Amino acid sequence: MSTNNKRTDRNLTVDLNCDFGEGYGIYSFGQDAELLQYVTSVNIACGFHAGDPHTIHSAVKQSLAAGVAIGAHPGLPDRLGFGRREMVVSASEVYDFVLYQLGALRAFVQAAGGELNHLKPHGALYHMANRDKAVSEAIVQATLALDDRLMIYGQSGSQLLDTAQSAGLTAVSEVFADRAYESDGSLAARSKRGAVLHDAQQAARQAVAMVAQGSAYTPEGEAVEVLANTICLHGDGPNAALFASRIREELMQSGIKLQAPERP
Amino acid sequence: MSTNNKRTDRNLTVDLNCDFGEGYGIYSFGQDAELLQYVTSVNIACGFHAGDPHTIHSAVKQSLAAGVAIGAHPGLPDRLGFGRREMVVSASEVYDFVLYQLGALRAFVQAAGGELNHLKPHGALYHMANRDKAVSEAIVQATLALDDRLMIYGQSGSQLLDTAQSAGLTAVSEVFADRAYESDGSLAARSKRGAVLHDAQQAARQAVAMVAQGSAYTPEGEAVEVLANTICLHGDGPNAALFASRIREELMQSGIKLQAPERP
Amino acid sequence: MSTNNKRTDRNLTVDLNCDFGEGYGIYSFGQDAELLQYVTSVNIACGFHAGDPHTIHSAVKQSLAAGVAIGAHPGLPDRLGFGRREMVVSASEVYDFVLYQLGALRAFVQAAGGELNHLKPHGALYHMANRDKAVSEAIVQATLALDDRLMIYGQSGSQLLDTAQSAGLTAVSEVFADRAYESDGSLAARSKRGAVLHDAQQAARQAVAMVAQGSAYTPEGEAVEVLANTICLHGDGPNAALFASRIREELMQSGIKLQAPERP
Amino acid sequence: MSTNNKRTDRNLTVDLNCDFGEGYGIYSFGQDAELLQYVTSVNIACGFHAGDPHTIHSAVKQSLAAGVAIGAHPGLPDRLGFGRREMVVSASEVYDFVLYQLGALRAFVQAAGGELNHLKPHGALYHMANRDKAVSEAIVQATLALDDRLMIYGQSGSQLLDTAQSAGLTAVSEVFADRAYESDGSLAARSKRGAVLHDAQQAARQAVAMVAQGSAYTPEGEAVEVLANTICLHGDGPNAALFASRIREELMQSGIKLQAPERP
Repeated sequence: MSTNNKRTDRNLTVDLNCDFGEGYGIYSFGQDAELLQYVTSVNIACGFHAGDPHTIHSAVKQSLAAGVAIGAHPGLPDRLGFGRREMVVSASEVYDFVLYQLGALRAFVQAAGGELNHLKPHGALYHMANRDKAVSEAIVQATLALDDRLMIYGQSGSQLLDTAQSAGLTAVSEVFADRAYESDGSLAARSKRGAVLHDAQQAARQAVAMVAQGSAYTPEGEAVEVLANTICLHGDGPNAALFASRIREELMQSGIKLQAPERP
Repeated sequence: MSTNNKRTDRNLTVDLNCDFGEGYGIYSFGQDAELLQYVTSVNIACGFHAGDPHTIHSAVKQSLAAGVAIGAHPGLPDRLGFGRREMVVSASEVYDFVLYQLGALRAFVQAAGGELNHLKPHGALYHMANRDKAVSEAIVQATLALDDRLMIYGQSGSQLLDTAQSAGLTAVSEVFADRAYESDGSLAARSKRGAVLHDAQQAARQAVAMVAQGSAYTPEGEAVEVLANTICLHGDGPNAALFASRIREELMQSGIKLQAPERP
Repeated sequence: MSTNNKRTDRNLTVDLNCDFGEGYGIYSFGQDAELLQYVTSVNIACGFHAGDPHTIHSAVKQSLAAGVAIGAHPGLPDRLGFGRREMVVSASEVYDFVLYQLGALRAFVQAAGGELNHLKPHGALYHMANRDKAVSEAIVQATLALDDRLMIYGQSGSQLLDTAQSAGLTAVSEVFADRAYESDGSLAARSKRGAVLHDAQQAARQAVAMVAQGSAYTPEGEAVEVLANTICLHGDGPNAALFASRIREELMQSGIKLQAPERP
Repeated sequence: MSTNNKRTDRNLTVDLNCDFGEGYGIYSFGQDAELLQYVTSVNIACGFHAGDPHTIHSAVKQSLAAGVAIGAHPGLPDRLGFGRREMVVSASEVYDFVLYQLGALRAFVQAAGGELNHLKPHGALYHMANRDKAVSEAIVQATLALDDRLMIYGQSGSQLLDTAQSAGLTAVSEVFADRAYESDGSLAARSKRGAVLHDAQQAARQAVAMVAQGSAYTPEGEAVEVLANTICLHGDGPNAALFASRIREELMQSGIKLQAPERP
């Protein structure tokens, strides 16, 4: 059991993050530009599951102009599957994939006068790192090799956060306002009734509960302990902007400060 | 006319460079490992025309173990054509392509405790940068944006070297020991009789003349002024290792010191 | 001067074509689905500049359901540039690129019980084939090698149509309703004032003139002879559907029959 | 239990197959050209895990010149991993991947005046099809959709062969002369002592036993029933050609006829 899952002090600050720069060539994806006004940090795709040099350049400039913190969002080398398909990869492959993408993105951030703040794995890599120790260690080691002040975003209660903390990196615990949880702290499977919150106001209320009480809820309404350092806002879906604005507003009205975590 | 083409002082030091890490996945290319013992610097493929995260990782480790200087070898995004096909790309695309590849490679070099020394464009990008001001400026600006102490390798007399020098970067003038030159300092086209030197000893003698007298030769034997800061050794071809060893030996026997240029 | 450019008989039938299936993975492009109701034939991307097996499968099914004729829309192997960047490729490379894409697309059409009707090169390959004899011959030879009853769509007056006719293929002459022409029959450069018709009604009127009188117009209003066997409707741009519906309506009101050309 | 695993009549004919055309761009792989003289059929890479239009064109021409039967060798879309990494793909994705590759390869075979004979999945796709019913059905359905006379090569005793037979396709049962088997008819894991036969003569003797007695052997020397319609010869490894020539010679000396299976 991870210590990340224990909320030990009242936390009245939270980060709002969204994925960003997930287009490719002429293609765009999601409501990137619209969401930027609601978040305090972004995870920029690095060219494997999505993104390309030009898209990255543009995403970095927009992020700095908006004053949000920038993180790397490395994925598996599967553009066709948008990095959502699990692949059988070795730990040393994961290390190399992450280091390559981190370095590439960081070059654009530095060239634009900014600083890279964090790393959040994408899609299948995120899920693999949640549960697989070797994958989580490969990600953490690649991060350490480049910059030991980079923070790791990972799912509340995940193996990735444990590994990051053990290695001395700052672990930032992520929750999903629009998802129900299982009593063990994992996300309820999307196929389960009530697993996805389709009402923006309900998601906004859960966001506040997550930050203020450290509580998420099962589909049956049972409270589940989570640690909410950052809330993930989805950029796709027809109501992405509506959810983002409602969650943001509800948090602010509850006196919760919205702010990206600062590099140690 | 570029000032790079003017040899103003006796130069008894020269760098020997070769391309390195140009495999991909299970594929290998050329006689990388064999050539490593003869050179003082390598240009490592960065994942666009060749190379991938794992290949880069391995190439960086081998290079550091061999004690040779490491440069980035960015190419056009055309793996199928090995970066040898010219493409109509804008200057801002070139900038982004180069910055992405530089950053990715640099991450591996830094993670391994080394330092990136130079950049040499690959294939079609090299040829485009030789003659096209906008392309050369895009390459130089991307380099400056990341690290203004990186050196630029470019063909003797080329636009790229002029642009690099004008921008305050150290320009390293490259010559080809196994190629004949035109009287204007350009390479004689491969299709021309005598354009390629097939005799290792003849190439070795031209290498010495290039460094010691600043002279290359036309297919007809006329001397052509070149500046030889670094000599390119080819890793492909059946006699790659033979040429490399003969050129190296002849230079050393002529009292010429083999050494990579040092970062300013 | 091509004989394609000579309208020798009153032509009261025309095909309306649009590009189709130009998404990739999770990405979509243009207003594919919306345009399908207005056209009589589609050009389906084959996986090089755009498209992938799943996108192709879906595009083929939609096209057959809509009752439109299906053509292959092969492009250069440059997904990042959407096949719009010219590349230095040999004729034998073009042959292989086209044959590969034709075969792949045809498999889906046949598996769905349909028949491939035509080929129209995409983007840079289209422009190269308009003017370059070797490129046009490579495309025509690859088509012949697979099915000598496939028709070739090419720009009115182009080299590609000449080459196709000389080889015994049916050449289908394409015009652009929303573009002004030069007096030599080529398209006026987009950068030129008046080169792009921004008014749907004006484009619709030119469409009728193209079919009924064989006349396009220069930006200055001078008539230019063109042969309009098919009119290209653009799927991107904010007013794509508006232009398509206006052009279609105007043609029908002028008594012009809309119909895809039939395989010989 | 598959009926493929039952040898019901004396089989004195066998096919020898090898993978072919597994290069990419400038890269080559294995000892393709050398092996061609020993086999009666080849499996040509189709551009996903390896191969590209030019490589395919060349491989098809060489195969026809050598008089060997041609099969398609489709793989997962993972060039970096050479199609050897399992990926979580849906059955409909597999169907589309296979149909695309089959169609592309068939175009080259038809253009060269040949006929496609069979399909053998590559690498991870082969292993997935051995055990996963949905994957095997997707492969078989894609094959049926294109040509119901194509034969399916699959591992002796595998799900793929069962599915192919049930669908009315000719199933060709494949064995590996240089590998030991488990008593259930599966291959002994490479990590197991004795799993790989490093002696060419021993492999050649097992090849004869496989064809003449329907027997493979466990590492402990126990006989295992297999059905040997075709024997796979590996093109990589330092002794590929030696193994191939020894196996071929031993089979011929044992009076076994070497011949590709004929389309039904």
